[in-house]
Amino acid sequence: MDTVALAAELIQRPSITPNDAGCQELIGQRLAKLGFTLETMVFEDTTNLWARRGTEGPVFCFAGHTDVVPVGNEDAWEFPPFAAVRHNGYLHGRGAADMKGSLAAMVVAVERFVAHYPDHQGSIAFLITSDEEGPFINGTTRVIDTLEARQEKITWCVVGEPSSTSQFGDVIKIGRRGSLSGDLAILGVQGHVAYPHLAANPVHLGMPALTELVNTEWDQGNASFPPTTFQISNIHAGTGATNVIPGELYVQFNLRFSSELTSTQLIERIERVFTEHQLDYKIRWTLNGEPFLTDSGELLSAAIAAVQETTGIEPELSTSGGTSDGRFIAPTGAQVIELGPVNATIHKVNECVREADLDALTLAYVKILEKLLC
Amino acid sequence: MDTVALAAELIQRPSITPNDAGCQELIGQRLAKLGFTLETMVFEDTTNLWARRGTEGPVFCFAGHTDVVPVGNEDAWEFPPFAAVRHNGYLHGRGAADMKGSLAAMVVAVERFVAHYPDHQGSIAFLITSDEEGPFINGTTRVIDTLEARQEKITWCVVGEPSSTSQFGDVIKIGRRGSLSGDLAILGVQGHVAYPHLAANPVHLGMPALTELVNTEWDQGNASFPPTTFQISNIHAGTGATNVIPGELYVQFNLRFSSELTSTQLIERIERVFTEHQLDYKIRWTLNGEPFLTDSGELLSAAIAAVQETTGIEPELSTSGGTSDGRFIAPTGAQVIELGPVNATIHKVNECVREADLDALTLAYVKILEKLLC
Ligand SMILES: [Zn+2]
Ligand SMILES: [Zn+2]
Repeated sequence: MDTVALAAELIQRPSITPNDAGCQELIGQRLAKLGFTLETMVFEDTTNLWARRGTEGPVFCFAGHTDVVPVGNEDAWEFPPFAAVRHNGYLHGRGAADMKGSLAAMVVAVERFVAHYPDHQGSIAFLITSDEEGPFINGTTRVIDTLEARQEKITWCVVGEPSSTSQFGDVIKIGRRGSLSGDLAILGVQGHVAYPHLAANPVHLGMPALTELVNTEWDQGNASFPPTTFQISNIHAGTGATNVIPGELYVQFNLRFSSELTSTQLIERIERVFTEHQLDYKIRWTLNGEPFLTDSGELLSAAIAAVQETTGIEPELSTSGGTSDGRFIAPTGAQVIELGPVNATIHKVNECVREADLDALTLAYVKILEKLLC
Repeated sequence: MDTVALAAELIQRPSITPNDAGCQELIGQRLAKLGFTLETMVFEDTTNLWARRGTEGPVFCFAGHTDVVPVGNEDAWEFPPFAAVRHNGYLHGRGAADMKGSLAAMVVAVERFVAHYPDHQGSIAFLITSDEEGPFINGTTRVIDTLEARQEKITWCVVGEPSSTSQFGDVIKIGRRGSLSGDLAILGVQGHVAYPHLAANPVHLGMPALTELVNTEWDQGNASFPPTTFQISNIHAGTGATNVIPGELYVQFNLRFSSELTSTQLIERIERVFTEHQLDYKIRWTLNGEPFLTDSGELLSAAIAAVQETTGIEPELSTSGGTSDGRFIAPTGAQVIELGPVNATIHKVNECVREADLDALTLAYVKILEKLLC
């Protein structure tokens, strides 16, 4: 079937982040035939494709990435990871589920939709990057910056991330928590353990503040988000010598936060704790993304109906999981959801996708287009 | 003068731990001429000398070490570290103060004492090791084991460690705190920071217990010892990845403890804290030494009087500072003190000792021998 064939062609291009390996060219050729205007945006090592059919609003956008994570131990794979082997109803290979299957479904869905509705309302767009799995600096975020600068707006966006957990359509992601990281150095005075009065142990100084942060209830979450969490990922102090009081304590921590809070509020609350504990500290903050949420609207209604009509399943609406490029698109005011195949094998050896799920996904994408642009 | 000349000869032998570099042979030759019986005890990489003059009790023992710490950046030294340069009333070189000056003073003091009192009471002994600055496994502790096994007892022991702080004789060390180290692993469950409910962060789990230990008042010390202290020297958790909750937290800590407590009591109290906090943990304890104290007795009286007669100074009696080999000798029941030159330059570049202090130290050692063995 068309979607599986195109997915296989994409898998055969070993596009490990940030390499695109010709995937966007293949997609672009298909879209150009449908009358899309192609714009390739290269930022440093990253190739991005912005393609649009139509000049009017509203703008429906499919968003995704051609890059894949490394294969790891290739010997552990049942089938070669870039061979795109079809076996027992599954298409195997790196990127099959995350997210070349979805990219193929988007292209084939648009081909079918345009064949039936060449004069659809509004516009259809594709925002494809090749650095989603990497540092995400030169990908979606810079395409969005470019669109914003020329006041080109996305109304509705479906991201092709594999949202489903046990069967296709069981979960639609309607947002993600925010993610904020801190790189903290607590400064003390190095010394000898036999003379602690001449030193200031930054581990001892920092522990009450860190304990307070660990024990803080940041919020209680809300209907769409679980409560905000704080986790220390790395902590380090000491030279290795057992008789030396260390001079600095280094701590890295991360918060996954609900839409009840902003990163600015969190930073303010955390720095107040350090100040109250009279710590001599330095901190570098990294905002990986503010929380975003699309808990109502035409896009979500269309997606729920499309999934139900295609699969008979009532999808669960979820905001769980890691970050996604949706965090760069949502702040422009777009409605953003994620709908894709089952994510059980992503980033693992023997990544694969059910061929029937790619067909169902294609059908669901067509139905969403029909509901929004006809 | 004799002491400075012998100290210079010792400094010229570059006896970096555990090398003796012929120092003990030189000392042994001088003692043999005085009628000492020499016993060289080699344990693995370490050479030790036990020398004794006389077979009766009481046994007066000089204890010390021939090994020195490395010179570090040799270019930073004003004079070559093994050249034993005399300049402006100071003898320069690695080991000048710690403790080849003291060894020379001991030998010259005994030479003078035996010349005057060839038939002194009791016995005079030397316990010299070459691993005091190192892992102290094959040095004094094994010589003491050997003596204990044959029921050979030391009554009084003067360790030549540089006890003085600003001028010779201002401090006599009358004991040392105990030192106990713990190597702790707190076990959690590794996971992704986005899914903390599937993980158990050992940093978060361990922090309340560690905070409790940091805030514990272990004792209030006593007349001879400051209060017991607890210091974390190393703490480490995390793979470096900022999105991974670590699986283990590693902590190394050290207690310097007074004679109000034993190591057994400390271990029991600390493990009870871990148990009360329901931690899954492993710990390896290292007892570097129980506290010891000689706060009265003939030896201390003789040493105080000898210092006062030599220098006019009333010495302060102290138990501060790091560990010393006295911790291995005191548990046999011996009275143990430390009396040596000014320690301002030890373990540093440009280590040196005042030549007049070595003369005064020699005189003080003679007076101690006279007070105890005449
Ligand atoms: Zn993905
Ligand atoms: Zn020493």
